[in-house]
Amino acid sequence: MARPIIALLTDFGTIDHYAGTMKGAALTVCPDATLVDISHDVPPHDILAGALELQASFRYFPPGTVFLVVVDPGVGSTRRGIAAEAGDYRFVAPDNGVLSGVFEDVAPKRVVSLTERRYARPTISRTFEGRDRFAPAAAWLAKGADVAALGSALRDYVRIEIPHAIQTDDRIVGQVLRVDRFGNLVTNIPRQLVDRLASGGAIDILAGGQPIGTLVETYAGAEPGMPCALFGSCERLEIALNGGDASARLGLSAGAVVEVVRAATAVLP
Amino acid sequence: MARPIIALLTDFGTIDHYAGTMKGAALTVCPDATLVDISHDVPPHDILAGALELQASFRYFPPGTVFLVVVDPGVGSTRRGIAAEAGDYRFVAPDNGVLSGVFEDVAPKRVVSLTERRYARPTISRTFEGRDRFAPAAAWLAKGADVAALGSALRDYVRIEIPHAIQTDDRIVGQVLRVDRFGNLVTNIPRQLVDRLASGGAIDILAGGQPIGTLVETYAGAEPGMPCALFGSCERLEIALNGGDASARLGLSAGAVVEVVRAATAVLP
Amino acid sequence: MARPIIALLTDFGTIDHYAGTMKGAALTVCPDATLVDISHDVPPHDILAGALELQASFRYFPPGTVFLVVVDPGVGSTRRGIAAEAGDYRFVAPDNGVLSGVFEDVAPKRVVSLTERRYARPTISRTFEGRDRFAPAAAWLAKGADVAALGSALRDYVRIEIPHAIQTDDRIVGQVLRVDRFGNLVTNIPRQLVDRLASGGAIDILAGGQPIGTLVETYAGAEPGMPCALFGSCERLEIALNGGDASARLGLSAGAVVEVVRAATAVLP
Repeated sequence: MARPIIALLTDFGTIDHYAGTMKGAALTVCPDATLVDISHDVPPHDILAGALELQASFRYFPPGTVFLVVVDPGVGSTRRGIAAEAGDYRFVAPDNGVLSGVFEDVAPKRVVSLTERRYARPTISRTFEGRDRFAPAAAWLAKGADVAALGSALRDYVRIEIPHAIQTDDRIVGQVLRVDRFGNLVTNIPRQLVDRLASGGAIDILAGGQPIGTLVETYAGAEPGMPCALFGSCERLEIALNGGDASARLGLSAGAVVEVVRAATAVLP
Repeated sequence: MARPIIALLTDFGTIDHYAGTMKGAALTVCPDATLVDISHDVPPHDILAGALELQASFRYFPPGTVFLVVVDPGVGSTRRGIAAEAGDYRFVAPDNGVLSGVFEDVAPKRVVSLTERRYARPTISRTFEGRDRFAPAAAWLAKGADVAALGSALRDYVRIEIPHAIQTDDRIVGQVLRVDRFGNLVTNIPRQLVDRLASGGAIDILAGGQPIGTLVETYAGAEPGMPCALFGSCERLEIALNGGDASARLGLSAGAVVEVVRAATAVLP
Repeated sequence: MARPIIALLTDFGTIDHYAGTMKGAALTVCPDATLVDISHDVPPHDILAGALELQASFRYFPPGTVFLVVVDPGVGSTRRGIAAEAGDYRFVAPDNGVLSGVFEDVAPKRVVSLTERRYARPTISRTFEGRDRFAPAAAWLAKGADVAALGSALRDYVRIEIPHAIQTDDRIVGQVLRVDRFGNLVTNIPRQLVDRLASGGAIDILAGGQPIGTLVETYAGAEPGMPCALFGSCERLEIALNGGDASARLGLSAGAVVEVVRAATAVLP
């Protein structure tokens, strides 16, 4: 039988021992787990960023994977911990909305509050629930426990708003969700919206008000050194620079407005 | 049977191939090991920092875990390599004191010098003993070798001083040991000392001479934006800022003095 | 039987989810693989840097290891993907020369173009072939597939020039290939060349035109605070500073010229 997989996503960074200690706590419960890092460099306390990274990656893991997601500005407070089942996956996280991106794509079958004390460490630190509560819970799931066993069902779990692009007749208005390592500006504008608008005629693309040359199939399809737009690995519009850093060139970062407009509407009167 | 676990702590960083190469060398000896990173970002050559990270994390790993700890400013010199057994764990490291934090908490049962050549690679680089000497030794332990088999017993292994808080009748004087990713100031003042002092009446807390508002149970227990003191995940006093970076706000870093004093004694005459 | 090992080397960084997502895609094909990170911090799009890191590390992994190497400025273009067999190892990478360092050391037995669609994901993103093409191919190899099964044989695969030191009668001229985390300047001058020159009499070493004191056996063999030269873990000349950062002290970085000359020839007329 294949070994269970626990995928980790946190804002712990990799300088402190926190991510490693959490892995030790998980292996103490389930020594045969394969642990996989998605990232530990979610910006500190940035729940939305964590939700987006998880949404972009979870579906590429094998069915049965348990996701241990700890971006937790409310650690030690009365905010709950949750376990959830959605699609072929299970998740453990603080109840602060960090699973909202996943739940947008796959409706959760079951969400429970982590109330069963025996699935946590005997003592639960008020500053490090990742180690004492979330890692053991994820490891118990990896070991075969049911989500339902971990606590009582929850209906009012927290969800946060994932910013969506807005479409009108002649315009799509979205935003840059994140800038990746290569300086690509990843937006929240899905391919279908653009395809629909483009089916009505030529389109123009603006990022932070600046016209972006061409809609291309691939980075290499753009002229070297020229900004371009293409659909990225999650079928969202990206602004890129062939062989360069679009974010630096355009002076844009997360939150910048990106628009797709009917070519005609971009013409000045 | 569960697979053996090797946990790694180094100052190699993650840009160079060094940590990966060391893992390759370990897997060459023990291909079934599960490798877990504690951190590779100990500040270069900072033995004390490595000792503290290890001390904070080792007890959360499963019994039987082998720790491969390479913070090694004396690589290639005559300083020895050691293997040690302490509690339910085993350790491989240069003999420079980097295990001192562990040994403070759990007296070593056995320490040996890595003199048995057959547990090292055939050629030992003078600049990368992690690859050629320490990783193979750790992997042999993971594979079932006894600590005693790796070399001759050692009594005069190096220990470094872990800075301790000092307590007088009306005052505890400690220091910031490290600043974590969130800007929390982790001190060397254990909960018991504070509890004892506090049992005699109200206390005040000073960090770098600045009064710190309240002793709270959890980050969320402090007013947003106000510095506070609480006990962290290792039951040491931490100075934090609810939703912010205490280090930046207070302008303090590792080495800063932290004091806990009887409230009366803090009153100016 | 030992579990198959997949070692990863990319320029994806660790902030974005890309490396984690690629691991998920690999585990989906081969859930029992042990995944090992060499580094994800190759400078973005730097094929030569990737080739050098791989060359320095691959031989320390167990025979049978599959290397998944993704430094891919041409992602989505018509550049091919390849799988290769060399020595006891197999490799999957874009066909851009990133395996050139390995092929310099071990002639490839077989190189194929990744033309067999069934070893890729059903849909291949034009911006993330690591996830959709390279990770699955590596995982199929780990699972037991033959390199030959992945596609048609290739003879004209791309090779890039690895800069080599040049030797004349009384002089070796090389360069700094990379600066490591500790500030050591790793050059492309192999020990044999230096030994041969030194067998004819005293030598001098110059880095960026600056005389480097001594050729020592180990960092600790140099006077503290003085630059020195020694042979690093890959038997190449390194310029180092005992207890310090040679790169910062000498103001040198990758590309700087390093010369080894007959002592006499260094004397000014």
